[in-house]
Amino acid sequence: MEKETTIFGIRAVIEAVKSGESIDKVFLQKGLRGELYHELEQLLRKEGINCSYVPIEKLNRLTKMNHQGAVAQIAPIDFYDLEGLVMNVLESGKTAMFLLLDQLSDVRNFGAIVRTAECTGVSGIIVQKKGGAPVNGDAIKTSAGALFKVPICKVDHIKDAVFYLQASGINVIAATEKTNDTIYDVSFKEPCAIIMGSEGKGINPSVLKVVNAKAKLPLLGEIESLNVSVACGAFLYEAVRQRR
Amino acid sequence: MEKETTIFGIRAVIEAVKSGESIDKVFLQKGLRGELYHELEQLLRKEGINCSYVPIEKLNRLTKMNHQGAVAQIAPIDFYDLEGLVMNVLESGKTAMFLLLDQLSDVRNFGAIVRTAECTGVSGIIVQKKGGAPVNGDAIKTSAGALFKVPICKVDHIKDAVFYLQASGINVIAATEKTNDTIYDVSFKEPCAIIMGSEGKGINPSVLKVVNAKAKLPLLGEIESLNVSVACGAFLYEAVRQRR
Repeated sequence: MEKETTIFGIRAVIEAVKSGESIDKVFLQKGLRGELYHELEQLLRKEGINCSYVPIEKLNRLTKMNHQGAVAQIAPIDFYDLEGLVMNVLESGKTAMFLLLDQLSDVRNFGAIVRTAECTGVSGIIVQKKGGAPVNGDAIKTSAGALFKVPICKVDHIKDAVFYLQASGINVIAATEKTNDTIYDVSFKEPCAIIMGSEGKGINPSVLKVVNAKAKLPLLGEIESLNVSVACGAFLYEAVRQRR
Repeated sequence: MEKETTIFGIRAVIEAVKSGESIDKVFLQKGLRGELYHELEQLLRKEGINCSYVPIEKLNRLTKMNHQGAVAQIAPIDFYDLEGLVMNVLESGKTAMFLLLDQLSDVRNFGAIVRTAECTGVSGIIVQKKGGAPVNGDAIKTSAGALFKVPICKVDHIKDAVFYLQASGINVIAATEKTNDTIYDVSFKEPCAIIMGSEGKGINPSVLKVVNAKAKLPLLGEIESLNVSVACGAFLYEAVRQRR
């Protein structure tokens, strides 16, 4: 089920983008010029594809083939379209439960979260195109294969996804310490979406401003935060408990 | 707060053991002989210290010093004595909550579990001398320092610890799929201990036979298990919820 994971060559990467391949990230050689290279840069910007400028040595490590300064990493899964996914879930009659990951970058945490999401009946996971963990073989492995089972959406901005979910009647709940409400005070019984922040920075303040509710896990010791995949599991199992 | 992490030389390791240093593991050179070496082997067996026979190259990688065929890794923390810890907790007036880890070997999972334990007010963590994750710098790091705050006991056999806890009036609850009861059906309100099994094999069947209760997390998807640190977090937060 895993697909070829790299595409190389400027023309090939352009064609892959145009044909709608689920590209996870593109590496471009620093300081390169030329018409075709410029066309690729513009296309990546237009499509909002995550892209890094790197030294040629990095590209040489990614592929032994003649890459011409461009290597695209293809995600081993197909990404879902947010609008289509939300519509499908709402029409299915199941109580929606989405998960939004705000620039969570550790691949092992990402994999463990996808695994937990599969086990708790999450309808779909929404990640941002830039700044998120790579959707690669390591993520598949730590997800125990759950990445093939839980729909993943990539969006330009988490905040826009929050607005779209809210407009669809879905309550957006942020996992944050910046509240007095614990997970036991908040209702997960209605259609909802939980946002988890990144390991270091938590949820972006501009996203926090627009959510419907905030909830925290009680912390009874001196340490001020949990591992994000553990915290996500505690949120999702509280939702499972309330929905029994 | 971190201590020197290796001791080398046969005589030095013998003295370290005799003086009660918190030794995590001893590496001995394969095929070595001699009276002193034999004395060390007997001492390690008597004290139940985890020990591996390895080629000389492995020892040379562990230390550049003249190791004489013996290198001991010292845990960066002091281990607690089970009897003393249980007595302290019972006398403290707090409702005890112990965690037993049955040969959980992944150091990142171990660290994340210790971190969660600190955040949920766990009284102490009990691990088996053989087969567990190393208590080293990586464990400290993934625990976010919680290894310095939560008492850790090393015991010869998890099963004996179960008997001791039960004799002290503590309910032992196994985290296992081999039951119809979910975590929401089981009471964590009384003094209790939760056993988590290893990543691959779960809890040893002989241990499962002697527990007071078994509980599972509902799994709503197709994947048959969660990451062990995520599962442990869901158990501990259900206990926190019930004890509010």
